[in-house]
Amino acid sequence: MTTLAPSAFATAVFPASADVEAIIRLALAEDVGRGDLTTEATVSPEAQATADLLQKAPGVLCGLPVVAAVFARLDARVDVTPRAAEGSFDARGRVVARITGPATAILTGERTALNFLQRLSGVATASRRATELVAGTAARVIDTRKTTPGMRVLEKYAVRIGGAGNHRAGLDDGFLIKENHIRAAGGITHAVRAAQRRAAPGHVVEVEVTNLGELDEAISTGAALILLDNFSVADMRAAVAHTAGLARLEASGGISLDNLAEVARTGVDFVSLGALTHSAGVLDFSLEFVS
Amino acid sequence: MTTLAPSAFATAVFPASADVEAIIRLALAEDVGRGDLTTEATVSPEAQATADLLQKAPGVLCGLPVVAAVFARLDARVDVTPRAAEGSFDARGRVVARITGPATAILTGERTALNFLQRLSGVATASRRATELVAGTAARVIDTRKTTPGMRVLEKYAVRIGGAGNHRAGLDDGFLIKENHIRAAGGITHAVRAAQRRAAPGHVVEVEVTNLGELDEAISTGAALILLDNFSVADMRAAVAHTAGLARLEASGGISLDNLAEVARTGVDFVSLGALTHSAGVLDFSLEFVS
Amino acid sequence: MTTLAPSAFATAVFPASADVEAIIRLALAEDVGRGDLTTEATVSPEAQATADLLQKAPGVLCGLPVVAAVFARLDARVDVTPRAAEGSFDARGRVVARITGPATAILTGERTALNFLQRLSGVATASRRATELVAGTAARVIDTRKTTPGMRVLEKYAVRIGGAGNHRAGLDDGFLIKENHIRAAGGITHAVRAAQRRAAPGHVVEVEVTNLGELDEAISTGAALILLDNFSVADMRAAVAHTAGLARLEASGGISLDNLAEVARTGVDFVSLGALTHSAGVLDFSLEFVS
Amino acid sequence: MTTLAPSAFATAVFPASADVEAIIRLALAEDVGRGDLTTEATVSPEAQATADLLQKAPGVLCGLPVVAAVFARLDARVDVTPRAAEGSFDARGRVVARITGPATAILTGERTALNFLQRLSGVATASRRATELVAGTAARVIDTRKTTPGMRVLEKYAVRIGGAGNHRAGLDDGFLIKENHIRAAGGITHAVRAAQRRAAPGHVVEVEVTNLGELDEAISTGAALILLDNFSVADMRAAVAHTAGLARLEASGGISLDNLAEVARTGVDFVSLGALTHSAGVLDFSLEFVS
Amino acid sequence: MTTLAPSAFATAVFPASADVEAIIRLALAEDVGRGDLTTEATVSPEAQATADLLQKAPGVLCGLPVVAAVFARLDARVDVTPRAAEGSFDARGRVVARITGPATAILTGERTALNFLQRLSGVATASRRATELVAGTAARVIDTRKTTPGMRVLEKYAVRIGGAGNHRAGLDDGFLIKENHIRAAGGITHAVRAAQRRAAPGHVVEVEVTNLGELDEAISTGAALILLDNFSVADMRAAVAHTAGLARLEASGGISLDNLAEVARTGVDFVSLGALTHSAGVLDFSLEFVS
Amino acid sequence: MTTLAPSAFATAVFPASADVEAIIRLALAEDVGRGDLTTEATVSPEAQATADLLQKAPGVLCGLPVVAAVFARLDARVDVTPRAAEGSFDARGRVVARITGPATAILTGERTALNFLQRLSGVATASRRATELVAGTAARVIDTRKTTPGMRVLEKYAVRIGGAGNHRAGLDDGFLIKENHIRAAGGITHAVRAAQRRAAPGHVVEVEVTNLGELDEAISTGAALILLDNFSVADMRAAVAHTAGLARLEASGGISLDNLAEVARTGVDFVSLGALTHSAGVLDFSLEFVS
Repeated sequence: MTTLAPSAFATAVFPASADVEAIIRLALAEDVGRGDLTTEATVSPEAQATADLLQKAPGVLCGLPVVAAVFARLDARVDVTPRAAEGSFDARGRVVARITGPATAILTGERTALNFLQRLSGVATASRRATELVAGTAARVIDTRKTTPGMRVLEKYAVRIGGAGNHRAGLDDGFLIKENHIRAAGGITHAVRAAQRRAAPGHVVEVEVTNLGELDEAISTGAALILLDNFSVADMRAAVAHTAGLARLEASGGISLDNLAEVARTGVDFVSLGALTHSAGVLDFSLEFVS
Repeated sequence: MTTLAPSAFATAVFPASADVEAIIRLALAEDVGRGDLTTEATVSPEAQATADLLQKAPGVLCGLPVVAAVFARLDARVDVTPRAAEGSFDARGRVVARITGPATAILTGERTALNFLQRLSGVATASRRATELVAGTAARVIDTRKTTPGMRVLEKYAVRIGGAGNHRAGLDDGFLIKENHIRAAGGITHAVRAAQRRAAPGHVVEVEVTNLGELDEAISTGAALILLDNFSVADMRAAVAHTAGLARLEASGGISLDNLAEVARTGVDFVSLGALTHSAGVLDFSLEFVS
Repeated sequence: MTTLAPSAFATAVFPASADVEAIIRLALAEDVGRGDLTTEATVSPEAQATADLLQKAPGVLCGLPVVAAVFARLDARVDVTPRAAEGSFDARGRVVARITGPATAILTGERTALNFLQRLSGVATASRRATELVAGTAARVIDTRKTTPGMRVLEKYAVRIGGAGNHRAGLDDGFLIKENHIRAAGGITHAVRAAQRRAAPGHVVEVEVTNLGELDEAISTGAALILLDNFSVADMRAAVAHTAGLARLEASGGISLDNLAEVARTGVDFVSLGALTHSAGVLDFSLEFVS
Repeated sequence: MTTLAPSAFATAVFPASADVEAIIRLALAEDVGRGDLTTEATVSPEAQATADLLQKAPGVLCGLPVVAAVFARLDARVDVTPRAAEGSFDARGRVVARITGPATAILTGERTALNFLQRLSGVATASRRATELVAGTAARVIDTRKTTPGMRVLEKYAVRIGGAGNHRAGLDDGFLIKENHIRAAGGITHAVRAAQRRAAPGHVVEVEVTNLGELDEAISTGAALILLDNFSVADMRAAVAHTAGLARLEASGGISLDNLAEVARTGVDFVSLGALTHSAGVLDFSLEFVS
Repeated sequence: MTTLAPSAFATAVFPASADVEAIIRLALAEDVGRGDLTTEATVSPEAQATADLLQKAPGVLCGLPVVAAVFARLDARVDVTPRAAEGSFDARGRVVARITGPATAILTGERTALNFLQRLSGVATASRRATELVAGTAARVIDTRKTTPGMRVLEKYAVRIGGAGNHRAGLDDGFLIKENHIRAAGGITHAVRAAQRRAAPGHVVEVEVTNLGELDEAISTGAALILLDNFSVADMRAAVAHTAGLARLEASGGISLDNLAEVARTGVDFVSLGALTHSAGVLDFSLEFVS
Repeated sequence: MTTLAPSAFATAVFPASADVEAIIRLALAEDVGRGDLTTEATVSPEAQATADLLQKAPGVLCGLPVVAAVFARLDARVDVTPRAAEGSFDARGRVVARITGPATAILTGERTALNFLQRLSGVATASRRATELVAGTAARVIDTRKTTPGMRVLEKYAVRIGGAGNHRAGLDDGFLIKENHIRAAGGITHAVRAAQRRAAPGHVVEVEVTNLGELDEAISTGAALILLDNFSVADMRAAVAHTAGLARLEASGGISLDNLAEVARTGVDFVSLGALTHSAGVLDFSLEFVS
């Protein structure tokens, strides 16, 4: 039996999920294909190597357990020893791990490992930056479902590593009634009631509203969580005043790092940002052989 | 038997690959999970809907066949009719497809479809921009293996849709001897010879060099394709002069849209850009119900 | 692309989930193995058949979409036409569907289809019975994670078809802090706080208590949902009085159909019953060829 | 490479089958989903735990190798040491295994492990009870294909652990010509001949008969194994006398623990009972942390 | 849901097995990889084509349903119309099917389809030849488990198409006690008894013997099926006389087409030939575009 | 995480490919099915065994890493120690490996391991023979895509072990424009140009010609690699003279071991032989328990 937990990285609260196993398997399969021609042709299968994994730009390290899992799938003898803590920030460049083992496996896995690491560290770095912008307010920055296909669990992990929070993980992880659902259900009240009947005890039904009138209707149905869709900052403030604590409010749509702090100061409980995952950019890493 | 080809989009030269099937399957599984709670609770399984797929920012449309495949996996009765051509550029915003069928399937697949579309269109748009920057030179912009895990085949398709070219698709798709291989093999000459012995008739062995001295050695081994790793623009010019057509040259490392045109004018044959895939950003799309 | 939705049964709110596809695939693979020897040897591949699917004992019909999906995987030409509504109760025996198509596919899929149908209808029937026992109280009967391996999504669907509710669908679908978590976290307060920090906006953290003292502590942490583990009926009543609406309460442990009504009358909000899924028994069905 | 054999449990003759691997994988995937939220939030990945696996009701222990495989898939460092023998009976309650390792993996796997164990022990217990009822007769109790979807190999293993025997494992594991096959083939004689032509040397063709007249025809075709479908006990006796050892006889249909002994005393060779698997009920187990 | 039955070929008794689906999927994946570069580059996705599938050497046609399934997986619009019957022999060369549909799918699937067809037709042809050599004797030629990895179900189908019979399909499909089992079990009698206890009603236990003394012991245990391992023809004759109908006998080991007829005339019931599958050779086919 | 590299055999340059893992998994699944009945019934799970893997006919050993992987998947405790080098030739018969571990796993994996070994050694042996026939010429023998379904990566590995070379590994591994592509593209020149535009820097476009006239056209397009399809030996000589080194030439079609040497002496650069893989035959091996 394979194991879902990367033992060497037990200190990171890393999700033991079959989805993570699946994307690692797929990423290696698509890169290695029928075999690593160059390495097979030029490097002895008996050669051992030691390499440093280098962070080359300012940001938050995220993804070491994935790096370890990538190499473990290629060859169980590859050892990845962390030199920096998952989630730590560095501004100057540093060695984040030392990798030793068969040179062939290290060469074959290098690009796939880096592709995961640079992306997850990019998401963690963006999340940290966003979180810093709302410091001093009661608002919490959270992510969305606008993630990279196949990377959902990992990107939401990176958001947490960066200090932000997670919205629901998928369509089965809670209720978010959007405009199209409302139209199909015949109105906000009807839709919220239908969802509440279906909801498990641990689920709070959330409903999206597009103006203050709809907000009123949502509050009157007893909705405890309301998404303000594309509200202006002024309308957000009005919504907070109007709601008066009867429901928690999430600001969503049209928010960027430029106006995030202003949005947070309106008094909303949550600000969701698709950009945390879909536009985070990558953080530069490289792998350098030291022997 | 499932079919790998998205019939409705036969006009796009879309790769019929099991990797594409795998990432679509994984993306839907991670988003839908055990089922779409909100849609199940609020929308009748008999409801029909019509929706417009809207491009909301300037860029190149790329990914309609994936959109169709996402919905087809949810429900074969969903129809996706293109209103714009895969690969076409738009600067103002437009409807790119009309989607009709069961409302439940359209609601369940919406986010996954958009997550693919926004990313692939982002890559195609970046590729088009890069290609425009080298117009008038003999250089060809190509991608790298710095792609999103699980998205290799699709992102390389998007690069082509945007007008740039593909470098090798994976470690089994040709030989690229890098510094670490050279060290392990005991020198450039030795590594190139080993690779040439293994190469299939249709494979050209490529070797990476880091200075003009190594370039000399590479040329003398008969290498027909040489990667100039992190050369300055001046050194690239020197390399082109020095090589005198005995090999084709690829510039790689430290190249961005800012210096791309200058690099292209040095006379190199190829300029490879990781940023085409890892930092392309997304192009904004939305799905709006019209009935 | 395969489709996750059983089109013919759009009137049932049936979960379009990859888990459902997986268990159907596995069930057919384990029964058919390398091929149906008897049918291959004795029945012409050109023979057509019509068969009635018969309910033979009193209970709630549940699983027709799975029956359709089983046959569809064997041969797309098999048609399953419902003669009774998913979720309807019958006390005397009836035809619930008519099945027509190639005799070979019907014979090969018969046992697998019945194995699903008899079990899901058993769960739906048990759920209906339990729901009837709490009629007139404010308590809602809900299921647990004590389901049959591989059948989670389907059995929870059957619970809903029978009129009861679902507790969380898996370990990723909400927080339920049990005794062992409390011990490991260093106490109720500490554990609840840790979970609340991690919880998404739509998640309510639930905590298990084993006596009235722990209930006090749970309430004081602001836990909005509390599981009373193996409380006596008298203690449940005390807990309800004590909580005074500050949290919703779930009774769990040691509850059977014998004492369910009494438990419900204590005023708890939820009663969870593992027996809905693990001891529901099966409802008898058969498939009879009519031509 | 994963290994199919649970090394720690080599003393149980446990089937090394890819089907077993598949259902364990599916069961964990459906329960863990994207990750165990509660455990991740409240328990340190470094915490170690020791837990006792307790049998809480009278019955036959069955499923320890599956318990070990479930935990091994989550974390290879979890150790499961048996304290009772697979297949042993206990009437009072006992510790059946001690489990040690990372607390997180034990908490995450607990429910899935118990869901397998309670069901398999239920089947083994029912099988033992049925076997005891036929003691002193020449009849052997055997199972059917009326098993839980996905659990075929494991449930048939549990039947053997309980002391009963297995009928064929699937449609590819021998020939059983039923009424519908007979009709499609144009009669008993024709169908039996067709099956005998196809049968491998090690396969005995079995044919189902519904009355003594059909029994005659079956015997005359040389069928060596005949299933008496829904015969009354009196007719079973007549069939045994009539057959006079020319074929072995299997009683099937309408048999429960109430009339099993009487059926066995008719002199039939086999009595098949769907209830061994589909109505066995579960045996109660729990997992309790001891440190 | 995908379908396991190739509808267009219902006249061939073709196994609907997940193993068949798996090898077709694997074969296409390994050949197509990330996409068919040449076809994508040179052929319009709108081009339609008609092609003839040609048999170019004398032999038995076997594998048309697989050809259809290969193309169906690439594109559901490809039509494969048989022009010759599965299992028919041809001595001169002929068109066996006409294939029409998108030119791209036909070009992409051509080699994979031919690779299946040439091999299965080779096995069917060898099986027919072997069967002809034993004509007039009571012996039946059967296959072994010496098949091509991944092709078990298909090659055993080809053996039947060629007129020979199948031995057991796998290790779970009956009991064959070999020398090593006998040694481990402590003798023939002990091993046969152990297997008979475990055997399902429809399974006949077979035991391998290496000399006439062991044959005596096997007969005395009541073994009904005995494999004569590497017996000389003279010893086979002696074994037949000695057994006197108390068991059926299988000759195995050291048998080729050269001595097959002589072996069959010894009076054994079965002659098993690994060469039917592992050394059958291929039958030449090609695909030629006619428009 | 499973590992793709067979650690024990690091001295063989063996492809670490998911395709290899897939065919080993499939081969074991199809043979073991629901479990090894005979071994389970007759051999104690605690029995240990030592066995010799014997080569019984003259040829090249190929496939030991696969043997090791087969047993490792069944039980990680099985040890396979090579006694002969992968790729070595033997003319008399020899022990090639010693296998020790649980007797059950060795018995269960024996046939699957041998089925791989006999076939791969057959391909390696045929490749060595072909290579010897062209000794002294400049021609290199290469394989084709006429491989066994599912065995592509392994058979191409065996070809290399035997000393011959590989042509492209699949449709995504380079461009080979055949007659049908030419027709669909509207001529040689047009097709070659289209392919060259699409080709990655490391890909050489190959085009098939059927006569000297087409050869002229191919040369004039600048094609650097040309396949001479079914040319007579005389025409090959003419083609070599005509081409005068402007392109490399591959002879293909109608070539067997009988005329291979003659073809090689024409001066072509490559001779491709489908028979290396599809008609190689098997090399006989057996597994014998020594204790």
